[in-house]
Amino acid sequence: MRNTVGWQVEGPSAALRRAPLKRRDLRPDDLAVRVDYCGVCSTDLHAVSARDGKRGEPLVPGHEFTGVVTEIGPAVTRFAVGDPVAVGNIVDSCGECAMCRAGQENFCHAFPTLTYDGTDRHDGSNTLGGYSREYVVRDRFAYPLPAELDPAAAAPLLCAGITVWEPLQALGVGAGSRVAVAGLGGLGHLAVKIAVALGAETSVISRSPDKADDARRLGARSLIVSTDPEQMADARDRFDVVIDTISAPHDLGPYLRLVAMDGTLSHVGYLGPVTVETTDLLVGRKKLSSAGSGGRPATAAMLDFCAEHGITADIELLPSARVNEALDRLRRNDVRYRFVLDMSDLD
Amino acid sequence: MRNTVGWQVEGPSAALRRAPLKRRDLRPDDLAVRVDYCGVCSTDLHAVSARDGKRGEPLVPGHEFTGVVTEIGPAVTRFAVGDPVAVGNIVDSCGECAMCRAGQENFCHAFPTLTYDGTDRHDGSNTLGGYSREYVVRDRFAYPLPAELDPAAAAPLLCAGITVWEPLQALGVGAGSRVAVAGLGGLGHLAVKIAVALGAETSVISRSPDKADDARRLGARSLIVSTDPEQMADARDRFDVVIDTISAPHDLGPYLRLVAMDGTLSHVGYLGPVTVETTDLLVGRKKLSSAGSGGRPATAAMLDFCAEHGITADIELLPSARVNEALDRLRRNDVRYRFVLDMSDLD
Repeated sequence: MRNTVGWQVEGPSAALRRAPLKRRDLRPDDLAVRVDYCGVCSTDLHAVSARDGKRGEPLVPGHEFTGVVTEIGPAVTRFAVGDPVAVGNIVDSCGECAMCRAGQENFCHAFPTLTYDGTDRHDGSNTLGGYSREYVVRDRFAYPLPAELDPAAAAPLLCAGITVWEPLQALGVGAGSRVAVAGLGGLGHLAVKIAVALGAETSVISRSPDKADDARRLGARSLIVSTDPEQMADARDRFDVVIDTISAPHDLGPYLRLVAMDGTLSHVGYLGPVTVETTDLLVGRKKLSSAGSGGRPATAAMLDFCAEHGITADIELLPSARVNEALDRLRRNDVRYRFVLDMSDLD
Repeated sequence: MRNTVGWQVEGPSAALRRAPLKRRDLRPDDLAVRVDYCGVCSTDLHAVSARDGKRGEPLVPGHEFTGVVTEIGPAVTRFAVGDPVAVGNIVDSCGECAMCRAGQENFCHAFPTLTYDGTDRHDGSNTLGGYSREYVVRDRFAYPLPAELDPAAAAPLLCAGITVWEPLQALGVGAGSRVAVAGLGGLGHLAVKIAVALGAETSVISRSPDKADDARRLGARSLIVSTDPEQMADARDRFDVVIDTISAPHDLGPYLRLVAMDGTLSHVGYLGPVTVETTDLLVGRKKLSSAGSGGRPATAAMLDFCAEHGITADIELLPSARVNEALDRLRRNDVRYRFVLDMSDLD
């Protein structure tokens, strides 16, 4: 086993503390990655808050990180020591089901192996995430990090970025599309940047009128204040696609009413059950969809697109020792727009 | 006012009784229609059951009927006395909003005038439906009944038929599509016939294994028994489109799991709120939609298609005096597959 160090939750405490960690010895198709930067995703917050002592093992969050290859297994051909790489929220899949064969490993019928709190397919161990100085990952689930992208600001592309890229691609967003992004947080601000770069006429829907300047800076044409009934009524039936990135349970009705005839609301910010009035779908023949993460081909395409268009996240970079502060502020939505932890303080 | 006779509910009783009715004198663009055949829709059942004495006025159900033009207003040019016609669940709309201009009068922003229990846009009266011997309708909302179609068996096309035609068209169903129809009732059996005629490989999902012969006779390739976990597991991710015509509230999860990657579940049988697990949409990037009724162009196109392909409903034709028996049996799902009332006994 390899020794490293990271930030973990043990037992019922919701605070992370620095702890020594073990990583597996490299299998033939493994890379060892020195983790330099890891984004703080709201999934991490939920995992920390809901920690129920799964199998008594510690939780190490973190599933959007960038770093540098430090060692390779003998079967690895796509990477060399020193290569900059990026890793997202999936580190393995069955490789054999229809979804894996279609390049949608995120929908693997045998369930993909999650980057943390997942179960390794070979040794059955609980996976430990990227809030650590080293990660060992199967080469298929590491991506070359384009040289054009700042490694710290690129880290959130691997979860937040791909999660909004997938529905924008699946719903055919491009030049002439009318897109609204509900919620301007980690997911939302990347959705705006990507939709704008795809050529869509893009608006932001937010409770906060004070995000108007940011919305414009990100490339949006307008900000619709969701608490203003007049603005919401004016925007009725206006958007081919609404990407709803709001991370708390909420009524989808007001957002469905902004969708144009035959358009789609993609609900990506919150994973629980949602209730919709059938008539909100029926009137205008609208669709509700969701998305989350992405397969290997889409992740690679998203990184290429972001490199070409100079897209990274707007981040607040903190030394990893301030991880608990980052989680506290994320819990209060006090971040513009993504925390990234600098892991060099773990050396 | 014109005198006719029909079947109505008054006050809290859920039984219909024969009663004299008034119809308006013809406006310039009105037709008087002798109603010959009127289908019995589950909406009628809900309206009768939920009768709350709206404005103290009687309820006369019925919104899918065929008959013959008996008189025309002076501005009517598309119809002549003696023409066979069909009328569905909408008899007027604003004509000016974006939806009306797009030929989707069913989504009129000012709300379409319903064939019964609607509010007439001119005199504010409560509309009385097709369970009667005469109906007066604005010419724009009557359709020429193709001569190829049996007038009794064609009546259900005007509500059940258009309600399944709309999503099949909107979702691009055609040769090579894989379609499943959940629930083999009034809507479902027409969805199967139309999907098969569109060239789709069509299956039926039903609780009743004894519907296998009917499913095959209607053109379906297979029947999937929804209470058999093995059959449902085998059908996972198999269908581009699932048309869910089940008329009672139910868990959509098992049906969403049969939808293929990027496919759609169209929920058309039940109008109340529905709850879905976001992950049932997320995994496979699936969509939930709905549909109901249709605009004038789609209704005319559906009738042409049905005439070309010889599609009508499988009906049980009853004298209209047996309307309460029909509603009772419909309440118990005891009909294959649609009751139609013969109104000639009202003379």
